[in-house]
Amino acid sequence: MKLLEDRILKDGVVKAGGILKVDSFFNHQMDASLLNELGKELAREFKDARVDKVLTVEASGIAMAVFAGLALNVPVLFAKKSKSKNISDDVYCAEVVSFTHGNTNNVVVSKQYLHEGERVLLVDDFLATGAALVGLKELVRQAGGEVVGAGIGIEKVFQGGGSKLRDEGMRIVSLAMIDNMDDNGNITFC
Amino acid sequence: MKLLEDRILKDGVVKAGGILKVDSFFNHQMDASLLNELGKELAREFKDARVDKVLTVEASGIAMAVFAGLALNVPVLFAKKSKSKNISDDVYCAEVVSFTHGNTNNVVVSKQYLHEGERVLLVDDFLATGAALVGLKELVRQAGGEVVGAGIGIEKVFQGGGSKLRDEGMRIVSLAMIDNMDDNGNITFC
Repeated sequence: MKLLEDRILKDGVVKAGGILKVDSFFNHQMDASLLNELGKELAREFKDARVDKVLTVEASGIAMAVFAGLALNVPVLFAKKSKSKNISDDVYCAEVVSFTHGNTNNVVVSKQYLHEGERVLLVDDFLATGAALVGLKELVRQAGGEVVGAGIGIEKVFQGGGSKLRDEGMRIVSLAMIDNMDDNGNITFC
Repeated sequence: MKLLEDRILKDGVVKAGGILKVDSFFNHQMDASLLNELGKELAREFKDARVDKVLTVEASGIAMAVFAGLALNVPVLFAKKSKSKNISDDVYCAEVVSFTHGNTNNVVVSKQYLHEGERVLLVDDFLATGAALVGLKELVRQAGGEVVGAGIGIEKVFQGGGSKLRDEGMRIVSLAMIDNMDDNGNITFC
């Protein structure tokens, strides 16, 4: 999506270690108008997928997810991150290893809000190693639902998570796909 | 706002200890259409306040905040919660004591995104003891900005935070103001 690619080129900053900082408009300070357009685009991509629910993970996935949910006219559920191993019987729980922060979180959702047979669209701001999507997919599996696909803002293709998940059969739509970021801060899209 | 009050009466659940569970539509699973209406209503209330930026706190404040930001056509910044005392020089930081979780978090925002002279609208899903608003206000103070008001989804008036902050001069608009919740689960609005 050109709108997002142009904004990344304009305001994104490449940091050492494969980090792309987009926190001026995407995941700390947020351009609501841009995120609304991204959410609407994801809704267009998945309009025929009979989505029952959007599932994202706190915190930076929430904004694009609610705009997608608004456009699809379905509820939006966000998984909560939890350090605690003391997970109650009321929740589904899966592990997510964070590439950026180098730690492991549990992600949990209340069993009340994911159901057997539900068709779930996963939404997240970034796709890198794919750990977050694997965790969200596991929550849907525990509930007996079905993942109809994943809608992503920015995919860092060179980190391989998207390729692996597509090989396993997941339909993934990424609005900007970054092929390469070099040491001079240049960004190349697929 | 009748739309929100009606939804609270329909789907809210009163729990022991002054807890109102609204996680079926408001702060875990989210009705994007409802939150869009709430965000637009906050924007209408503050349309003459010359808002430069919306500031909220992760995670459940984000959805309503981005809808308010979209309607006001201003950027939305969310403060991040941090357990760490190891706060870098790049951020403003304030303490928030959580009533619900009985712990203390730091809330932090990058210094890049809050500036001297900026007119900031605080947005949050709940107002109870007022601890979150006090923390967000402190972030704006550190940056040399000005809080033009606070837009809240649900205020639990009986917990006193709103009254105290209004006495100190903060303009607060709460879309549902709960006067009382009794042991039988009855909810009374102001």
